[in-house]
Amino acid sequence: MDLNQIKGPEFLKQCTIEEMTELAGEIRHFLIESVSKTGGHLSSNLGVVELTIALHHVFDSPKDKIFFDVGHQCYVHKILTGRASSFSKLRQYKGLSGFQKRNESVHDVWEAGHSSTSLSAGLGMAVARDLKNEHYHVVPVIGDGSLLSGMSLEALNQIGDEKRNLIIIFNDNNMSISQNVGALTKGFAKLRTSKGYTTFKTDLKSRLDKNMFGQTVLKSMTAVKDFIKQEVVDAGMFNEFGLEYLGPVNGHDIKDLIQILEVAKTHQGPVVVHVMTKKGKGYPYCENDSEGKWHGVSSFNVETGSPYSSLPAGHLSWSQIVSEPLVEMAKEDERICAITPAMITGSKLEKFFALYPHRSFDCGIAEEHAATFAASLAQSGLRPFLCLYSSFLQRAYDQINHDICRMDLPVVIGIDRAGLVGEDGDTHHGVFDISILRSCPNLILSQPKDAYEMQQLLHCAFQQNHPFAIRYPRGSAAYQDTSKIESIEIGSWSIVYEPEHVEMSILTYGPDVDRVTNKMKTNGLPVRVINARFFKPLDTQMLNKLKEEQLPVLIYETDMKAGGLSSAVLEWCCDHKAMLPIQRIGIEDQYVSQGAMNLLRIEQKIDINTVYETCISLLKK
Amino acid sequence: MDLNQIKGPEFLKQCTIEEMTELAGEIRHFLIESVSKTGGHLSSNLGVVELTIALHHVFDSPKDKIFFDVGHQCYVHKILTGRASSFSKLRQYKGLSGFQKRNESVHDVWEAGHSSTSLSAGLGMAVARDLKNEHYHVVPVIGDGSLLSGMSLEALNQIGDEKRNLIIIFNDNNMSISQNVGALTKGFAKLRTSKGYTTFKTDLKSRLDKNMFGQTVLKSMTAVKDFIKQEVVDAGMFNEFGLEYLGPVNGHDIKDLIQILEVAKTHQGPVVVHVMTKKGKGYPYCENDSEGKWHGVSSFNVETGSPYSSLPAGHLSWSQIVSEPLVEMAKEDERICAITPAMITGSKLEKFFALYPHRSFDCGIAEEHAATFAASLAQSGLRPFLCLYSSFLQRAYDQINHDICRMDLPVVIGIDRAGLVGEDGDTHHGVFDISILRSCPNLILSQPKDAYEMQQLLHCAFQQNHPFAIRYPRGSAAYQDTSKIESIEIGSWSIVYEPEHVEMSILTYGPDVDRVTNKMKTNGLPVRVINARFFKPLDTQMLNKLKEEQLPVLIYETDMKAGGLSSAVLEWCCDHKAMLPIQRIGIEDQYVSQGAMNLLRIEQKIDINTVYETCISLLKK
Repeated sequence: MDLNQIKGPEFLKQCTIEEMTELAGEIRHFLIESVSKTGGHLSSNLGVVELTIALHHVFDSPKDKIFFDVGHQCYVHKILTGRASSFSKLRQYKGLSGFQKRNESVHDVWEAGHSSTSLSAGLGMAVARDLKNEHYHVVPVIGDGSLLSGMSLEALNQIGDEKRNLIIIFNDNNMSISQNVGALTKGFAKLRTSKGYTTFKTDLKSRLDKNMFGQTVLKSMTAVKDFIKQEVVDAGMFNEFGLEYLGPVNGHDIKDLIQILEVAKTHQGPVVVHVMTKKGKGYPYCENDSEGKWHGVSSFNVETGSPYSSLPAGHLSWSQIVSEPLVEMAKEDERICAITPAMITGSKLEKFFALYPHRSFDCGIAEEHAATFAASLAQSGLRPFLCLYSSFLQRAYDQINHDICRMDLPVVIGIDRAGLVGEDGDTHHGVFDISILRSCPNLILSQPKDAYEMQQLLHCAFQQNHPFAIRYPRGSAAYQDTSKIESIEIGSWSIVYEPEHVEMSILTYGPDVDRVTNKMKTNGLPVRVINARFFKPLDTQMLNKLKEEQLPVLIYETDMKAGGLSSAVLEWCCDHKAMLPIQRIGIEDQYVSQGAMNLLRIEQKIDINTVYETCISLLKK
Repeated sequence: MDLNQIKGPEFLKQCTIEEMTELAGEIRHFLIESVSKTGGHLSSNLGVVELTIALHHVFDSPKDKIFFDVGHQCYVHKILTGRASSFSKLRQYKGLSGFQKRNESVHDVWEAGHSSTSLSAGLGMAVARDLKNEHYHVVPVIGDGSLLSGMSLEALNQIGDEKRNLIIIFNDNNMSISQNVGALTKGFAKLRTSKGYTTFKTDLKSRLDKNMFGQTVLKSMTAVKDFIKQEVVDAGMFNEFGLEYLGPVNGHDIKDLIQILEVAKTHQGPVVVHVMTKKGKGYPYCENDSEGKWHGVSSFNVETGSPYSSLPAGHLSWSQIVSEPLVEMAKEDERICAITPAMITGSKLEKFFALYPHRSFDCGIAEEHAATFAASLAQSGLRPFLCLYSSFLQRAYDQINHDICRMDLPVVIGIDRAGLVGEDGDTHHGVFDISILRSCPNLILSQPKDAYEMQQLLHCAFQQNHPFAIRYPRGSAAYQDTSKIESIEIGSWSIVYEPEHVEMSILTYGPDVDRVTNKMKTNGLPVRVINARFFKPLDTQMLNKLKEEQLPVLIYETDMKAGGLSSAVLEWCCDHKAMLPIQRIGIEDQYVSQGAMNLLRIEQKIDINTVYETCISLLKK
């Protein structure tokens, strides 16, 4: 069928198993073709094709609330709810979101981007439904990685207590983005091989007539359920949480899926439906990927699986610009450990993990624990490198403040994906970390302008004894392995461009330092460019120089204006009676949407032309 | 014995069970007497007297690492490690901390104040020990409330995977601060009544000679352990985490405790020792307290159990100033719900919970889940009041940003214990919330100066459709139930004192508004006092007035300077070319210690006299 013609999921009610199976094939084909052109999340969506079809067959969206944890596996849901034709603009500026968005469709009843919010959300919906005396099903779909995050477990603890009707679809592909970790995953492995559902299926034939979903049969569902319960004695951790458990069921068999979902639908109280899926199902490159390289992809050649884009010659991703020197330093210093919450591949820590397995720790999706674990390693004399995506670091704010900074422990925090990240949009932009970390006492907070300075900052960080955070953006930069690293003074900024005649200064940081320098040079503007590589502490010598000079200062940030670098400088000026003529560029008080970085920068008025024009206007004065 | 003579825990090695039992009585007596004079955490400490003695008898602190989750139950540990004589200054300025402090004793190997960090810390110590090829025991003590917080569960997941030697003492008193909640607690209840340890004890007699802890016997410990394992088939959730489980054991029987700890000591891999204690053991008022009223107390009469201090006449605690009108409003508006993470008593929500049980949710120590659950209720059309202590709100920062503010959901967030809290010290001061929340788009952030304004803000909050946070301090204020509440405009400040002749203005917030007004009035200073009751949005009309006036402005904050109200005002001034002569008072870049509020304010130079003197110096200019 033409997927573009789908207006909503109602047509699925009339479909036979065969038709739905055929549809699954078409959707899979569509996904591979479409994502190969736009880039996006592929593996996780290929894994839930049949599951999503079955969900929309059995439940009535939007009356029933079907939603996906994190949300990057909602592509099939989007196709079935009438959005196939928008996939050519997937993740693009003003285009279709790669996540659920409430303003995109009534079928998107919850939004996320961070992991493990769906169970808390599901409980909220169930409670609200009951308080308002309404009647519908609440059906969160959550993966095994997300399920083991602390906040999911907190939610399960209350869900098991509240006993509301809630159908939790446990999408078990035995992976987070990469391999799953943790003791609880062993329990899942045991469940996977349990005889529960197989027995149930065989037995069903003898109990039910072929009109499986007729009224008569529904009445016997309780008996069926009791039978399943009886057979599946050990539901592992779900038992402990007081949850009913149904499964496991083959997540690629639509008939089985529909059967088990119909049973779940009749259940009173919370129930977990254990669905076993294969991440990347139907596309061999994805199926064979155990490291998560196909989790999120850029455009690629469907035949060869090769990405069309590649890094510029001599460039490495910023994650690798961190991990390469880290590997070298760990050779010399046996105290250096690496800690990541389920982001080995994303943070390019594969080499470190391979070379130093005993000093490598993947904590799973557990930013809170990871940060305090790092604090404890530091307190015990080791030198942990705690690697967190800026946006996910928000989960560990308290642990960074209360455990790492308050005890003044030498944890080096790598803040990956800092700043705008582009296509992942508002849930993923790492634009808050400066604002929230700047008030943490004892913390040193920095960002290098290039790969060489990253090495300098890393050396600096490991040679001192306080918490030291280094942020770095998505994307890449030119990299050369340098054997001799000049030391860098904590809190020191540097003048990167000093024209003969200076009429104003720009303070900026990260890769924008060189971008701005080029722009000023090319246009021959009398503007000094200062690399404000430390947000904390500030370079007071430099600030005093600016104070004496009394020339205009433009502070150019690409993160939230509120509480950022400019805020720090304004505070210093206030406390030091430096009435400097300061102007600020940065992200205003709003969430930033998705799209190519250059478009977002223009929208937010933080692009290089805005900088140029602001300089011109300041120079005219 | 004279507890003041104890220099360290070594003497316990030579003590008989009888001597230690006698010591327990003496310590209990000491605790009640001492805390009745100074105030402090009583119930939790009375519960762990025998346990702490047994731990220090069996293990060798500080070589072995014994530490307590949260830490408020470490008083017995402090007594046994030579700090009894300091208890007269417990929780006082420059006195003994109510928590573990690394700078207080080598026996304090970890610090906290927030719940559920001990397991992550324990794993860190165990990993560091193994990497450094050292040999000692790591023994975190954690309560059942803390154990069920998300970050504990994240830690258990990795602990079960890592299989390091780690002895987790599960101090099960079946309470958080008040009653425990959640499905997992039901599993604990089952464990409590299991026959495990009773059988073990009876059987031991026939297997071991009376020299229980001799070398010979230690060798047979493995056999004993196997026997316990065999008997205790179902270790509930601990099984799921891949942890060995020993117990339950009576936490007030020193002999039993020592036996089981000796067994745990020989175990390879992580083991949970389930110790059943009675919170408040030995002091009837505490024992009979199921609401947590005796968790943290001020000084009291030992005979009657009555507190010596009471609120001034006509005063209510700030928590109650919030909860009283909330109860009234919930009568009119059935959409209003209350959500607390285990703080029903602390946040004075008892009446709300009693009157509206179906709209009341205690999520347990689970700030993350609680915030997203609130977001979901709001999204489903209800009007949740999410009550968080400022310091613990840090745990929910990401959920407030990513779920509540990003989706612009009308959750009313009550930020309790905002500002300095006094005796609980650095881990509990709520001085960071303005700095971290100010950059969250869509959020309205406010603080009332008095009880009437609190009612105004509450009404305002529930009548609009955005996330709305209201912070309020520890302590009390005069309260009158007012039937007619004048409305308040979002973002509006108010002039509280306008002398005839104005030479400068003070911007401040909370109860300091009236304090400052009194001071200015009393001294007849020509100083306008402005109540900056909204941190976000700012009152731009008022700011424009100040801009035109160009008189000095003193911004007086009692929270972190970095990123706070003054920072917001400076940003506004910068963006609006308002070169105002601003001076700031606030907490500098450091953690604030413990002590009476007035002493801390003097130390931090945020006391009323500093304000007065700063005014004088500004007026002279």
